[in-house]
Formats: sequence, C-alpha cells, structure tokens
Amino acid sequence: MGAREVGLPTRSVPLESFYPQRVTIWEVGARDGLQNEKSIVPVATKLEFLGRLADAGLTTLEATSFVHPKWVPQLADAEELLAGLERRPGVDYPVLVPNERGLDRALAAGVGHIAIFASATESFAKRNLNRTLDEQFEMFEPVVTRALAEGLRVRGYISMCFGDQWEGDVEPEQVHRVGERLLDMGCWQISLGDTIGVATPGLVEDVIAGFDEIDRLAVHFHDTYGQALANTLTALRCGVSTVDSSAGGLGGCPYAESATGNLATEDLVWALEGMGIEHGVDLDALARTSAWMAEQLGRPSPSRVVQALTG
Amino acid sequence: MGAREVGLPTRSVPLESFYPQRVTIWEVGARDGLQNEKSIVPVATKLEFLGRLADAGLTTLEATSFVHPKWVPQLADAEELLAGLERRPGVDYPVLVPNERGLDRALAAGVGHIAIFASATESFAKRNLNRTLDEQFEMFEPVVTRALAEGLRVRGYISMCFGDQWEGDVEPEQVHRVGERLLDMGCWQISLGDTIGVATPGLVEDVIAGFDEIDRLAVHFHDTYGQALANTLTALRCGVSTVDSSAGGLGGCPYAESATGNLATEDLVWALEGMGIEHGVDLDALARTSAWMAEQLGRPSPSRVVQALTG
Repeated sequence: MGAREVGLPTRSVPLESFYPQRVTIWEVGARDGLQNEKSIVPVATKLEFLGRLADAGLTTLEATSFVHPKWVPQLADAEELLAGLERRPGVDYPVLVPNERGLDRALAAGVGHIAIFASATESFAKRNLNRTLDEQFEMFEPVVTRALAEGLRVRGYISMCFGDQWEGDVEPEQVHRVGERLLDMGCWQISLGDTIGVATPGLVEDVIAGFDEIDRLAVHFHDTYGQALANTLTALRCGVSTVDSSAGGLGGCPYAESATGNLATEDLVWALEGMGIEHGVDLDALARTSAWMAEQLGRPSPSRVVQALTG
Repeated sequence: MGAREVGLPTRSVPLESFYPQRVTIWEVGARDGLQNEKSIVPVATKLEFLGRLADAGLTTLEATSFVHPKWVPQLADAEELLAGLERRPGVDYPVLVPNERGLDRALAAGVGHIAIFASATESFAKRNLNRTLDEQFEMFEPVVTRALAEGLRVRGYISMCFGDQWEGDVEPEQVHRVGERLLDMGCWQISLGDTIGVATPGLVEDVIAGFDEIDRLAVHFHDTYGQALANTLTALRCGVSTVDSSAGGLGGCPYAESATGNLATEDLVWALEGMGIEHGVDLDALARTSAWMAEQLGRPSPSRVVQALTG
C-alpha cells in the first residue's frame, strides 16, 4: 500500500516549524472581487464593505484600481471611493495602478501603496497589457521609479505563474525572471498568481523554491479546480507568509476563461485557525460580511465556510 | 515576514519522496453519495452510474449498504442492485454492513468485501448506532468473526475522528483506541472519517501519526469548510495511500448537521495528476459521469473540477 520511504518530518520536527507563526492576509475582495461582478456596486456599498472588512480584523484591504474605466467600469468610482474612505489606523489600502496615468490618479487621491500587474507569459502580456513580455517592463519602469520617489510602496503582481490557457505549461524559470526584474526594479513584494487555477502543490513548491528571497513573495490562488487552499498551505510550508484571498470567494479575472473564484478568505482563515497560525481575523464577523455582500450581489457566496456558517 | 526557521524539506529531499507513488481511490459516490439524496434513484440509473465509474478507471466502488431500509430508503434496493451488477474484472465492490442481519443479506447476495462503521465518540455512537462506545464493539464482534470465517474482507469506518458537533474536540488517543480495536478485531483497513468536515492539516498529522500501521489507514474527508483536499494531501504526505472520495462530491451524512459534501473524486484526481501520483482514472470520463448524475438528480455538482470541465 504506497511507496513512501522517507520518514514523516513532523515526527522529529514539530509541524508548526514548517509553517509561519503568523500569516498576513492581503484581502482583494473589494478590488479583484467586485471588478469581476456584472453589476456595478454602488460606492456606498463598497465603503460599507471595506468598513466591515476592517471591523473583522483584516489589515490589508486592496481598495480599488486605477485601470481605465472603459476596461473596468465596475471600479470607475475609484476617486469617489478613496475620497469617501474612512482610513482606519493600522489598515493599509493599496490600489492597483497599470501605468503612469493611473499613477497620476493614485497620487492625486493620496494613495500610499500601489500594485502593478505583470504577466509571466507572452500570450497574457499581449492580451491583458497589449505588450510583449519585455515591453511590459518599459511600461512599469517609469511608474515604479516615480512612485518610489514619491515615497509610495509598490507591489508587483504576476499573472499566469503556474499555467496559461494559450501556452499551457509555464516554465518556473520564466516566472523567476519576471519576478526578479520586478524585485530589482523596486517592488517590495511580488504576488505569484495562478490566474486560471490550474496549479497543484508540486509545481507550487518548484516555483517558490527558485526564488532567493521567499520572504518577499505572496501567493494568489484561484479555486477553479478546487486546489486553492491546498496550494496556499503548500506555499506557507515553503516559507511564504502573505496570502491573497477574497472575502466570500468573490472574483476572478474577466480576461481569462474559467478563471472563476479567488481563494475565499473564510476558507483560509478556517485552516489557519485550526493550525494555530495567527491571522487576526474574526471569522464570524467576516462570514456575516460576505453573506451580506452576497445578498447585495443577489447570488450565494461560493465559500464553503460562508455557506456552512451562515447558510 | 513570517517565522519559518526550518529548511524546506524538498530542497534536500525530492517532493515526490513525501508522497506515495500511487493512490488507491475508494469511490463512495454510489453508496455515501446516493444515500444522502432526497430523491430515490432508480436501480437502473445506479447500475449505469457504477458501470460508468468502472469505465472511468475506478477500481474500488462502494456499491450499496445493508442498513435497514427504514433508515436508508435510498438504498433499499441493495439486493436488486447486486443481482443486476455486472462485476468487472479487477474492480472491487464493497458494501456497508451494520450488523448480523446485514451480514446475512450481504452473504446471500454473494458479496466478498464488507465495511462496518464505528464511531470515535460516545455522542455519535449513541445517535448513529444507539449504543455506547464500548457496546458498538459487541455489535461488530460477531459480524467480523463470521465474515472472516466466510472468507470476506472487512473494512472499518470510524466517524467523527476530528471533531464532533455535540462533543467538540475529539482526542486523537480516543481515535487510536477505537481504530486499534477494529484492526485487532480483523479489519484489514480502517478509514478515518471527518464526518462534519472540521479538520485542518495539523490535526490530521496528529491523528495519523499516532497509529503504528499507517499503511492500514484510509482517510475520508468532507468539504463542509473547504478543507477536504488540503487534509487529504496532508494524509498522503504522512504515508496514507488510500483515499475515500465521491464522484462529483455527492453525499454527506444525514445524521450529522452540515455534514454536506464528500471530497469530490475529480478534485482529488486533478491534484494527483498534477503531482505525478498514479491514480488510474480518466478524469474527463469521470467528470462527464458526474455531470450526467447531476442531471439525473436535478442539481449541479458541487465539484469545482466538474463545474470547470463540463459547465
């Protein structure tokens, strides 16, 4: 029965030693989640959502995006949202910025933390950014340089790190090259995205192990094939301690087929809580918030925990 | 950023070494799945389901149960099903047997492999079996003795191994005591069930590590809180190589609140395939089978993979 020949590591080394003591949750529901809803959510509802997420203990709330409103009408209210946002002490509100025009808007809105988004593959760079893999860096360079000069922090997202629906497999080395360029450029952290949700734990370890500075990585898994939590826990075991997730499992990516469903923050918190890893979140308050948002959107939350706790 | 102080084990030891090379899937959809449907599925549909599961490459198909029809009317057709079953070479068709009366029926039907079901907790023993924790063994003893004398193989299920909704936490030592008694009694394998779906990976490791013969364990996780696949992969990493799952995520337990959703076989196969672990299943054929069964039941499959591949 089975062919395991290596001893269980947790018998000589406590399980906890393989995981971080604390995980930082980068909550993307208000941006990545609402960006992908068909309906346009009123700004007042978004502000209530962000307030309730902060009440539930989340400390990094990706608030909105300065992508052109033509491409993402759901977030066309970015200025109005940020003007109305009651910034809580200890809570960070990063926003997505695609280019210099977006940076102008972010600076005018008083944003202190931005995220740029890159592709790991030629195909998705072309489709999402209308640039080649190399040309994307020409777009990022002036954004990052100016943002850093203005005292902002810059995070780098990388899409399609574990597979691409046009190219199939993505070589881990290609992800490393894109990631190292973003880190060298001045991004304080990069988030490795499984945009189409195809990754499994072996590949997750391969991609992460190739980076020199694992403490500068975050992971962003989609649950398209039910693998998001297993992949995330694998990443934690590799030393990653920042995880992107979306309250109630809101969101996906409109330009990638079947990229439905971010990892639900509630499902992640259930795992962290059970494993004794600090997370700072009030799970019941968060699940109630997601159930409330699901009502606003007129459809049930795909999060198993939200269904179980509030169904 | 995080407090990991132990080196990534896969850097010195290949990842594959921590997992079995091959996993045996114990498919419970026809029994655990259909047992929990409100509608009673016609025997012809069940036979087609079992035939299609075998076509998809599954080699252990839990076929039905000899529980009293009053308790599980969905499986009242056990005799008719087994009489009509076209047994494929290389495919095993175990059936559930609760007591001596059930064994009589199983023997009369020509069954070669039975499974008994025990509880890890007093509360669930009382509710599911109407017996104390100790008294359940008095019920099993004559069943197992006679089954073994008749040349049958006997598997032991244990419910509530990771938590119980009436008792809360369940001590791993209690699970070990129940499990060791079943193994000593002659069960060739025991399946550790997370009947209410509350387990997380740390607890999974604790429970499994306490057993002397890990190669005689199987695991049976429910996805109530989205943890089933992460827990299953943790069990594999501990040396377990038999996994219970349900095609399309059918099933749960009618006597345990919110015990909805077995691990979907498709979501498991996606992970195994990606990790290079042998499983023998044709994923597309299986997903089509689950989509077909969902149609028969008039509701969508909860499996993410079934939704993604057939939606």
